Amino acid sequence: MRDVAVVGVGITKFGEVWDNSLRDIYVEAALAAIDDAGVDHLDSMTVGCMTGGLFVGQEHLGSLLADYLGQKNLAASRVETACASGGLAFRNAFIEVASGMSDIVMAGGVEKMTDIGGDGATYALAAAADQEYEVFHGATFPGLYALMAVAHMEKYGTTRDMLSAVAVKNHNNGSMNPFAQYPFKITKETVENSVMVASPLRIMDCSPITDGAAAVILTTVDIAKKLGKPIIKVIGSGHATDMIALHSRDDITTLQATSVAAEKAFKMAGKTIKDIDFAEVHDCFTIAEIIVTESLGLFAPGKGGEAVLKGETSLEGAFPINTSGGLKSKGHPVGATGAAQIVEVVKQLRGEAENGRQLKNNPKVGMAQNMGGSGGSTLVHILEVD
Amino acid sequence: MRDVAVVGVGITKFGEVWDNSLRDIYVEAALAAIDDAGVDHLDSMTVGCMTGGLFVGQEHLGSLLADYLGQKNLAASRVETACASGGLAFRNAFIEVASGMSDIVMAGGVEKMTDIGGDGATYALAAAADQEYEVFHGATFPGLYALMAVAHMEKYGTTRDMLSAVAVKNHNNGSMNPFAQYPFKITKETVENSVMVASPLRIMDCSPITDGAAAVILTTVDIAKKLGKPIIKVIGSGHATDMIALHSRDDITTLQATSVAAEKAFKMAGKTIKDIDFAEVHDCFTIAEIIVTESLGLFAPGKGGEAVLKGETSLEGAFPINTSGGLKSKGHPVGATGAAQIVEVVKQLRGEAENGRQLKNNPKVGMAQNMGGSGGSTLVHILEVD
Repeated sequence: MRDVAVVGVGITKFGEVWDNSLRDIYVEAALAAIDDAGVDHLDSMTVGCMTGGLFVGQEHLGSLLADYLGQKNLAASRVETACASGGLAFRNAFIEVASGMSDIVMAGGVEKMTDIGGDGATYALAAAADQEYEVFHGATFPGLYALMAVAHMEKYGTTRDMLSAVAVKNHNNGSMNPFAQYPFKITKETVENSVMVASPLRIMDCSPITDGAAAVILTTVDIAKKLGKPIIKVIGSGHATDMIALHSRDDITTLQATSVAAEKAFKMAGKTIKDIDFAEVHDCFTIAEIIVTESLGLFAPGKGGEAVLKGETSLEGAFPINTSGGLKSKGHPVGATGAAQIVEVVKQLRGEAENGRQLKNNPKVGMAQNMGGSGGSTLVHILEVD
Repeated sequence: MRDVAVVGVGITKFGEVWDNSLRDIYVEAALAAIDDAGVDHLDSMTVGCMTGGLFVGQEHLGSLLADYLGQKNLAASRVETACASGGLAFRNAFIEVASGMSDIVMAGGVEKMTDIGGDGATYALAAAADQEYEVFHGATFPGLYALMAVAHMEKYGTTRDMLSAVAVKNHNNGSMNPFAQYPFKITKETVENSVMVASPLRIMDCSPITDGAAAVILTTVDIAKKLGKPIIKVIGSGHATDMIALHSRDDITTLQATSVAAEKAFKMAGKTIKDIDFAEVHDCFTIAEIIVTESLGLFAPGKGGEAVLKGETSLEGAFPINTSGGLKSKGHPVGATGAAQIVEVVKQLRGEAENGRQLKNNPKVGMAQNMGGSGGSTLVHILEVD
């Protein structure tokens, strides 16, 4: 397998977008990535999207987006694994370049979630759960993650304070991200006075409904050197699934797909969690970030909440998590999130993170953990400055 | 890149399935493929599905299907490029094995189309067209293919007789396929007396709404030799897109994505159309088969209809097309069709096609052409007996 590098990144301003449709926002992110990379063509393109069908009645995004990007006859496809679709697109592009099949591949992600309204969005997102055994009985994602939160609190003594600390930290980081949907700071009180969605999760524990797109360009390290861009190598890629429904799992206070995907990525990279400088992780709900950091092996089981409360994962902490603002503040256009995480990791590794959120410790190795459903699938990637 | 072979195939009986859901039919096909291959594990799995979201409210099929297949923690994903999703899954699995990332990969396809009813199915399928510029204005796929048929008739003198001959031929072949949805012969009169859908296309010019699944196992040629199965090598893979909307194309009497994808596959295989013994092609409508055979270079532009009328593509013809019965008789569970085509190509190359439809000329090289939408994307694969 050939060595692969990321040479270009692009992202749209996340939010509720009224003046552009799905195809428009994707093209905006894609052109930004192409411009950043300085490439003069693409060999292929793959885009992650969770459910263009349910959100906007549009599938077949490979053809549609290649067409609107002006890339006639391009080998273009769409991949999906719920909210980890962007991470899957990145992995497939990585394999395609590594294999020798293609030299320059764009991996992107897009979702247009706000056109359909609230009930429609809830139904569309529920398609990531087990339709027959969870959704038919009324379960939606806030409820499923609330079950995980209650179990984690019961087993480990995780507290309301710890959940709130995740939201406060991520909004602090997101306040410095010009592409974030909610780029403002909040306090503990903001979270704790917000409306209850599914106890113990309040609305400020939840990531928002978002329109947005992100794209990155992957190529061989040899081509990257000729482009004159900073070489950000993809050194590890891991992909794993878990039982789709919560009730089928042995333990809902951990995320097994995350542990297995991380193990695979570490093994490929020849690294351990101790070698990683920072990470973007999938904080679709505050409890998710806590459990993910434990499942990655960063903290012992039950210790993730305490760590965030102590500031260990803050911008100035020993292991910064979600410098972008995470899904909570940056926004969560589900199919785009995995690609947006890679955008942030690359910016941090290049020293290009905007508005004071650039890490000061000269990070060399970053990680992205992207999750689908209630953890039914996970992609983990490790990137390193060459 | 490593040499790749198909070592196992599985398919369900296509039709209107009331007693099994999407997950059940996929598992049935997958277990058949695993059993046929004789492998004791999978390294990963990718499944093509056009729109589980719109048909049955279920996305996240990587997690769901790995779970129901008993493959805990498997790297499992879903890919989509409308009705060519199964072909895309096959290509991605091919790249993954060729790259060295995985040794044993299952590529499958599934669609459960009959649960939603007729109007729902029409809306779901329309998601493969350009929602903003075609569907909003009332166009659906029979109408779009009817436009292509009218243009082809006007430009080349293609006749009603020629369209009917495609349906009659494919039903003849399908009558010998125990997995076909409509395994019976029809006459020219059956087609020409059937109800008009979108002039000139009658209902017997159209492929049906179908539930079904298919799966194939890919591995390296080295591993295949140890399994003791016939070695069916994947020697060419091509993928291309075209403008998604018909009105954006220079010429709607040809299918450019098919031509480009075929060129790529021929180049990789080091073959031309003259080296191919037979093909499964995407006859979603009778006119599609005619235009596809021309776009593949098998017949000159405008000569595809005459060829089928003369029997050149029949089971006994010089270049048999759709020995399985094609989408017309076998059925067209949209996400599964590309994988089902590979199943038929492998059966023919192994000499295992059932009930007298096995080609008598000892075929060595077969092709599968799988198309999305009105030709907005196409996958072409070439397989050869080692």
